[in-house]
Amino acid sequence: MWEVIYYLDLTGTFAFAVSGALSGIEKRYDIFGVLFVGFITALGGGTTRDLLLGAAPVSWMHKITYLYVVLLGVVLTFLTHRHIMKWRKTLFLFDSIGLGVFTLVGIKKTLEFGLSWEIAIMMGVISAVLGGILRDVFNNEEPLILHKEIYATACFAGGLLAFVLSTLGAEEVIQIPVAIILIILVRLLAVRFHWSLPVATKRE
Amino acid sequence: MWEVIYYLDLTGTFAFAVSGALSGIEKRYDIFGVLFVGFITALGGGTTRDLLLGAAPVSWMHKITYLYVVLLGVVLTFLTHRHIMKWRKTLFLFDSIGLGVFTLVGIKKTLEFGLSWEIAIMMGVISAVLGGILRDVFNNEEPLILHKEIYATACFAGGLLAFVLSTLGAEEVIQIPVAIILIILVRLLAVRFHWSLPVATKRE
Amino acid sequence: MWEVIYYLDLTGTFAFAVSGALSGIEKRYDIFGVLFVGFITALGGGTTRDLLLGAAPVSWMHKITYLYVVLLGVVLTFLTHRHIMKWRKTLFLFDSIGLGVFTLVGIKKTLEFGLSWEIAIMMGVISAVLGGILRDVFNNEEPLILHKEIYATACFAGGLLAFVLSTLGAEEVIQIPVAIILIILVRLLAVRFHWSLPVATKRE
Repeated sequence: MWEVIYYLDLTGTFAFAVSGALSGIEKRYDIFGVLFVGFITALGGGTTRDLLLGAAPVSWMHKITYLYVVLLGVVLTFLTHRHIMKWRKTLFLFDSIGLGVFTLVGIKKTLEFGLSWEIAIMMGVISAVLGGILRDVFNNEEPLILHKEIYATACFAGGLLAFVLSTLGAEEVIQIPVAIILIILVRLLAVRFHWSLPVATKRE
Repeated sequence: MWEVIYYLDLTGTFAFAVSGALSGIEKRYDIFGVLFVGFITALGGGTTRDLLLGAAPVSWMHKITYLYVVLLGVVLTFLTHRHIMKWRKTLFLFDSIGLGVFTLVGIKKTLEFGLSWEIAIMMGVISAVLGGILRDVFNNEEPLILHKEIYATACFAGGLLAFVLSTLGAEEVIQIPVAIILIILVRLLAVRFHWSLPVATKRE
Repeated sequence: MWEVIYYLDLTGTFAFAVSGALSGIEKRYDIFGVLFVGFITALGGGTTRDLLLGAAPVSWMHKITYLYVVLLGVVLTFLTHRHIMKWRKTLFLFDSIGLGVFTLVGIKKTLEFGLSWEIAIMMGVISAVLGGILRDVFNNEEPLILHKEIYATACFAGGLLAFVLSTLGAEEVIQIPVAIILIILVRLLAVRFHWSLPVATKRE
């Protein structure tokens, strides 16, 4: 199972790098700028998780394949961005896979540090969503994810399911794939049916 | 004494979470976005201090009460924000308590790492003010604190007083409360009498 | 040689602090705000490098001279900013020296952690450029460096040269100064001749 998750993790990293690169191209950054935003988007969440846990040097320093996947995603995007809309459904699927896998990998790593499930779910969500938030901060834009997407909620639901399954005694080989699939489904359905979270109504 | 400081620390955390949540509501973020900004505001300063000191996993991962206080502050704000102006004086007092307590807790923790008083005062100021700065950065606004409030200065004055008292041989049980009170007083008086720091005049 | 590099490192820190302080004055921050941006610009890159490597407490906590150099740069800038354009060529040279030295110091430190040359070059570039990017993020502006300057590229070229020289068996006493000089030269020539990196052309 872990081998499959490893490849799905790389798939998600690729999709996040493409999303970051596209935002940098939109901003008319040069190739270095596009690369920088691609890295932040793809690796910012996991890096923050590692720093908060005290797991430095952070993981991509030892698993250098992740850097090359980001580089590949950014360079391909830079060269083919005019035609990339053809692949937008595939990219959206990859992005959703990344969301699910990043969440569960973050949860597992946090539990391995002997921390509680509450913290683990929180770290799972951070691993999955912070890259996109940092992308917007470095692009000098209001973070999109804070506004209008069921994004963190999908990750949270998956984390909660993993916790429930674990409490019921399910093995990781059941728990993790089921939770990942829930996250992907919630994400896909949320976009399909325009689900959103409540916004506080302002005082007139 | 430490028990009192612990409860004051939670009080400050609550006030900072409310301040963050209000800024997120103003931005029309959804409930997740409001929660995110509440966390950053309340825990961003202490988290950065812990990371710079090398004290990871950061403290709220082990003291989970802080997370629940933030959650409480954010949810209450989300539900009652139309009426929150009634409490603004109480919140301002709580916020000032937070400023004082965060500074002294930051100083004490840094000294326990064997670092110098200069670094300790700097870390105290960072613990107290960085949450508010990060709130503005994630909200895509110019950090208010850098502009026009005697905010960091109050913390710095309190840190300096703690250092002087410590040099004179005062015990912690004197030193820490006196310094906290100074910070709260400077903050209250600064707002009351519109004190501000010099701004460099621009070249015409 | 290390003593010379130490003084050049302080020179670069000074120049970066001045650059940060000028941006804060431009924003009409008060003296605390100007100091904050000066610190972020001068020490943000090296601090991030240390955090990613797991080298906390970060280096300026033990080498307090760096803090005083930043303080000096900021205070001098605050007092003399009306006349500072007279020194702009000197400052630009100091800034370029900083770029070169920060890169090579970052590379050396990363290699000492037993990490690969790829990661070391990346950490070298981050050490040199992230301070300027964080300055713009905290100023709520789009990071200039991502747009239009051969800045990271100069650092990358220097890092690559150090790697090649090291592979060819050159000693550090040759390798490091030569790479620093290359970075300074590329930077000076890029500004002189308006070199820039490719930008992706947008879909019409």
